Amino acid sequence: MYRTDIYYQDTDAGGVVYFANYLKFFERSWFEFFRTIGIPLTELEKRGIFVMVKNVSLDLVGKLRYGDTITVETSLKELKHASFLLTHIVSKEGVVTTRGETTMRCVNLTGRPVKMPDDLRKGLSLSLAP
Amino acid sequence: MYRTDIYYQDTDAGGVVYFANYLKFFERSWFEFFRTIGIPLTELEKRGIFVMVKNVSLDLVGKLRYGDTITVETSLKELKHASFLLTHIVSKEGVVTTRGETTMRCVNLTGRPVKMPDDLRKGLSLSLAP
Amino acid sequence: MYRTDIYYQDTDAGGVVYFANYLKFFERSWFEFFRTIGIPLTELEKRGIFVMVKNVSLDLVGKLRYGDTITVETSLKELKHASFLLTHIVSKEGVVTTRGETTMRCVNLTGRPVKMPDDLRKGLSLSLAP
Amino acid sequence: MYRTDIYYQDTDAGGVVYFANYLKFFERSWFEFFRTIGIPLTELEKRGIFVMVKNVSLDLVGKLRYGDTITVETSLKELKHASFLLTHIVSKEGVVTTRGETTMRCVNLTGRPVKMPDDLRKGLSLSLAP
Repeated sequence: MYRTDIYYQDTDAGGVVYFANYLKFFERSWFEFFRTIGIPLTELEKRGIFVMVKNVSLDLVGKLRYGDTITVETSLKELKHASFLLTHIVSKEGVVTTRGETTMRCVNLTGRPVKMPDDLRKGLSLSLAP
Repeated sequence: MYRTDIYYQDTDAGGVVYFANYLKFFERSWFEFFRTIGIPLTELEKRGIFVMVKNVSLDLVGKLRYGDTITVETSLKELKHASFLLTHIVSKEGVVTTRGETTMRCVNLTGRPVKMPDDLRKGLSLSLAP
Repeated sequence: MYRTDIYYQDTDAGGVVYFANYLKFFERSWFEFFRTIGIPLTELEKRGIFVMVKNVSLDLVGKLRYGDTITVETSLKELKHASFLLTHIVSKEGVVTTRGETTMRCVNLTGRPVKMPDDLRKGLSLSLAP
Repeated sequence: MYRTDIYYQDTDAGGVVYFANYLKFFERSWFEFFRTIGIPLTELEKRGIFVMVKNVSLDLVGKLRYGDTITVETSLKELKHASFLLTHIVSKEGVVTTRGETTMRCVNLTGRPVKMPDDLRKGLSLSLAP
């Protein structure tokens, strides 16, 4: 779980968080998620494997303002052969304000798709367990 | 149509455009789109009407690098009673690299949904014409 | 003291933190600084007082990469009649990588300079004490 | 000269351009500046030479809001042996709203300082001519 305050840098002149900035919260949260399941992204990269975003969806439910404190919870929704789907839920004081999903896949240094490493697959699978 | 070079500020350490930054390209392109259909967003705001993003989808097809020149084309895909769907297509040298959609709706200064103004509805409708 | 990991969103295609993003780290750090001295910025704003940046200087000493963990330390350098100067020091594993300063002043809702509140002046003064 | 509209992405909840975003305008402007003097940065990079920022100063004079149109003018202020100083002036309707300076130097792919190429030095020198 990632936790942050909302700063001016996250907002826009409409007084709320700028919609694109939610994706930045998602990245910080999934960085934490991979660390939690025991497969830090920085370790994967040392082995030449990079987790890239392929698709994104974002659903703006509520508003967030300067000074709010939020948590972002990332979890695995679906594990496929060559990709996996993460869900990201932003909450403020226990109330969901934003939801999003990112489809991720593994690529090598040149950006070509590669087989998902066994330990990553295993770590993801275990995160699904009840 | 919005046209821009890709600067360092748009990229990340993976060497390509950071995924969230595509949404910023979309905003610049739809700003232009509303101007083109004769309903500048800044004019709407003077009348107390704000066009807000409700949902986003993003599909990363190709890669974009520092120094590339892109165009973003925004068009209306669907016009509903209380919202409308815009499509944004990012191309480099005529090849599509990214696609996205944003569902938009009109709100007032306090963020409450309001009726879509007639001139906006008309301008959007006309943009659909063949 | 503000602490964060470096994410892709902070970097650029040169492989290091994009220079403008240091200013974002500074903001997050000074947000914490004001909380620490007992004058949260969000509380000041409820009283109609906004702390705005007037000048910035930034000195890039070392490099920061994806996956690095940094701390940012903000402290008061100088307290004047109508403004004050904050220093922000970014370190990685105890080594300074970036330094910056921001001159701040108080304004009201419309952006006009206002007198610095007594409790803010006192809080800042106390933060200087050895 | 670089010209742009101010979008929501450039602003913050204070209703004006977020201070760090001026540095992004500067980058876009200096990208144009190097193209104008006949030394595009992308060409330099193909030769293994990267122009990096070493120091920045920023002076916020006026305010910029959503929907404003600005121009940014970059010019050479000083040319030294191993570095050079660029000035960036942001104007709205002919009135200066922001000033900044960036000290730049040439580095190689690994970030080590390298000698400034002769054609770059010449191009910069000529840009100083009256």
